[in-house]
Amino acid sequence: MSGKIIHRIAEVRSKLREVRALHKSIGFVPTMGYLHEGHLSLIRRARQDCDFVVISIFVNPLQFGVGEDYAEYPRDLSRDARLAFSNGCDLIFAPTVKEMYPQGFATFVEVGGLTEHLCGASRPGHFRGVTTVVTKFFNIITPDHTYFGQKDAQQALIIERMVTDLNLDLTVHILPTIREADGLAMSSRNTYLKQEERRAAPVLYRGLCAAQEKIEKGEREVENLINLITEIITSEPLAKIDYISIVDLDNLQPIQKITGKALIALAVRFGQTRLIDNIIVEV
Amino acid sequence: MSGKIIHRIAEVRSKLREVRALHKSIGFVPTMGYLHEGHLSLIRRARQDCDFVVISIFVNPLQFGVGEDYAEYPRDLSRDARLAFSNGCDLIFAPTVKEMYPQGFATFVEVGGLTEHLCGASRPGHFRGVTTVVTKFFNIITPDHTYFGQKDAQQALIIERMVTDLNLDLTVHILPTIREADGLAMSSRNTYLKQEERRAAPVLYRGLCAAQEKIEKGEREVENLINLITEIITSEPLAKIDYISIVDLDNLQPIQKITGKALIALAVRFGQTRLIDNIIVEV
Repeated sequence: MSGKIIHRIAEVRSKLREVRALHKSIGFVPTMGYLHEGHLSLIRRARQDCDFVVISIFVNPLQFGVGEDYAEYPRDLSRDARLAFSNGCDLIFAPTVKEMYPQGFATFVEVGGLTEHLCGASRPGHFRGVTTVVTKFFNIITPDHTYFGQKDAQQALIIERMVTDLNLDLTVHILPTIREADGLAMSSRNTYLKQEERRAAPVLYRGLCAAQEKIEKGEREVENLINLITEIITSEPLAKIDYISIVDLDNLQPIQKITGKALIALAVRFGQTRLIDNIIVEV
Repeated sequence: MSGKIIHRIAEVRSKLREVRALHKSIGFVPTMGYLHEGHLSLIRRARQDCDFVVISIFVNPLQFGVGEDYAEYPRDLSRDARLAFSNGCDLIFAPTVKEMYPQGFATFVEVGGLTEHLCGASRPGHFRGVTTVVTKFFNIITPDHTYFGQKDAQQALIIERMVTDLNLDLTVHILPTIREADGLAMSSRNTYLKQEERRAAPVLYRGLCAAQEKIEKGEREVENLINLITEIITSEPLAKIDYISIVDLDNLQPIQKITGKALIALAVRFGQTRLIDNIIVEV
């Protein structure tokens, strides 16, 4: 519990200049706060890899669409600080919206292609908000290593693409999804779920696992696999499917048959809450 | 003539890592090559300000539209190297198109608002190409100081906006337009001009100066000033006006009356050649 919370860009820059001067490597985990075991696994890995670990906590308005949950998104900085610092974080950067997007802000970073399918189709502008804020964080924090969760698979691929394309001099690490005992992928949004929705939510992972089993038994037809997952998920009356997609892992384009590596990704609503999950399969 | 030409990103990074390790400051001048006195004035200023001076020479396909002069743009690396090194440049970074935009490249940096008027209206996508490539160069070269010419006034303002918005940790310097003895703003594109077009081209600056004189005598109405410049430029039968605009210097929005600082900017064609020029006025 020896870490520091900084709210201003100039202050975080000045602190990190000191860190750099000591030739320390910097690890960075961007978050929207309300930390769960998924985030903490990233922080612990950054702690192992790097001399100095920074996390950002910022609910980024730019990545929320009209009618989405920007206002309701859960926030608890003192709880987050306790969790982050006890898992090896040295510095929390928690800027205000005005600090990140002052009057006149007009610059956006956008990745084409990868952003059009899956969540990009359901949430127009979402990934532009993500890539813009992450570019800003990278420029402020200048990390050597940065850590993202596989749970946001599309986001992770987009960030990797962006880092390559913009020649950012850092390594992106994508770490496995952390799940509750019943298989539900950890997410800050799980706190939105009513009791009966929470009970129903593991159906997402059950659907994904069933598809994986079928693939292991030889199924390669995407249509059959999507039908199988759809059937399992719709067996839960509370679940409303946003999308279930099986795509090429490199370019996120829909495929017909599974060959090589593929991403099975889905988004499902339970009441007002939209949950995502995915697995990577390889044949 | 002791400088070095590097074509590969990995090699320039490795060289600049050595420079940084010696705590040397880095100055950077991005160019499309075919250097003239305007570029050289930027290089000499970087030489004064910084310990190590890098220029890029790259005719960036991303900032040329269909039907523009990408293929014809003049190129002469050995001439450029002689000029750059004899004016204080330490390192020329001259990547290939494939090195900058490998297969799968999909990320773009875009500044809103400032890019819509003036050249942004005549050349859709142009500034997106500029901001994308300049972001890449900044990430590869990590300069402390970077230098742009006032001749590309809109570009300079857009770059300043982008650096602020993306929290790039460097200082942007905008240096005065360098002109030929007869007032024509220096430009690599001046080499396109046929003899009679070259003779006619100083009418751009004559128009701008006439407007400035009128303002000094008390004129504030933008419409009157634009009429005056139009009259002067159309007196040259070879000149075909693309735009003549008077805009707020901060946001590049058109204004009706001059108050404070304004930018008078124009683009005019002579045959196939499109020239731009501008002045800043203050009342």
